[in-house]
Amino acid sequence: MAGDLDFTEQRIDGETVCDAGFMRMVRDRVRMHNGKEATRYVLRHCGAAAVLARFEDDSLLLVRQFRYALGRHTLEIPAGKIDAGDEPLATAQRELREETGYVADDWQQIMHCHSSTGFTDETLTVFDACGLRLEGPPAPDEHEHLQVVRISLADAWKLKQAGEITEARTLYALLWLRCRSDERL
Amino acid sequence: MAGDLDFTEQRIDGETVCDAGFMRMVRDRVRMHNGKEATRYVLRHCGAAAVLARFEDDSLLLVRQFRYALGRHTLEIPAGKIDAGDEPLATAQRELREETGYVADDWQQIMHCHSSTGFTDETLTVFDACGLRLEGPPAPDEHEHLQVVRISLADAWKLKQAGEITEARTLYALLWLRCRSDERL
Repeated sequence: MAGDLDFTEQRIDGETVCDAGFMRMVRDRVRMHNGKEATRYVLRHCGAAAVLARFEDDSLLLVRQFRYALGRHTLEIPAGKIDAGDEPLATAQRELREETGYVADDWQQIMHCHSSTGFTDETLTVFDACGLRLEGPPAPDEHEHLQVVRISLADAWKLKQAGEITEARTLYALLWLRCRSDERL
Repeated sequence: MAGDLDFTEQRIDGETVCDAGFMRMVRDRVRMHNGKEATRYVLRHCGAAAVLARFEDDSLLLVRQFRYALGRHTLEIPAGKIDAGDEPLATAQRELREETGYVADDWQQIMHCHSSTGFTDETLTVFDACGLRLEGPPAPDEHEHLQVVRISLADAWKLKQAGEITEARTLYALLWLRCRSDERL
């Protein structure tokens, strides 16, 4: 836009300080637009995709799992990390099948975002999936331990209001679903 | 809920592998519910708060800044990290004042979430702020370089649809604002 200022920071050098496979922490020395130097820690992340899988009665599929980072179980829409070379849609379709056993006929992207711009390049793409069909039993990864929960939007909304659903992309999907009768979306 | 399975993972031991001040990466060895061992990387984060600062005409305040993690400038609602001992509301109020120069009379929490449950305990609390008054010039931190942008909701929505606003909490706030005439929210 006209009048936009340029705050670009240029990388001078840097190194990976921790490599955890799907994510790695790098520490870079940068030159700020005012000429000064600064240190920037960045979490480089492979990206993720998620699915709002909903039935015609507006009930939806959530997965319950233990999130070690939080030290507790959560209820979230199905999601997973993007494998190298994969597209977000392919990831979402695979995760839905693996985590819940369902496949879906109709897919629509409802959100593409950067999950926490202050420190990571992680992208997240959320899809709305309709026309659900149970294709078989869930087949999660060896290290994933999941419980599939089918829940009405009304009940999910109550859990959100009660602070029992707190995962960001799930909250976005619930808000989107709550509002989707509104044509402006 | 009845029928809930227990997937709890117990920490065996671990260490900090990278300390970046407001966040640190830890690597823990854990015992899964099935008795097997696994490694968990977790980004321990101080948490953040953000503000949807809006005027009576539904225009709002965004800040434009360079996000090194993304390698480009972004437009986002004002936000900042929570200092030790601070509450999210106090953080949001401070960030609004520092980044934009505005203070607000009316504050309402519209979202509390975990931003990326797969790898971090980062919490994010978003507030709606009305009754804005310009109190003075912005006073950002020494290392923050910002440009304040007042924009109509309609124009912000267009930027969202065009993929030019991609920051997650900003997208949530825009969706919330777009839907707020709906009493169900």
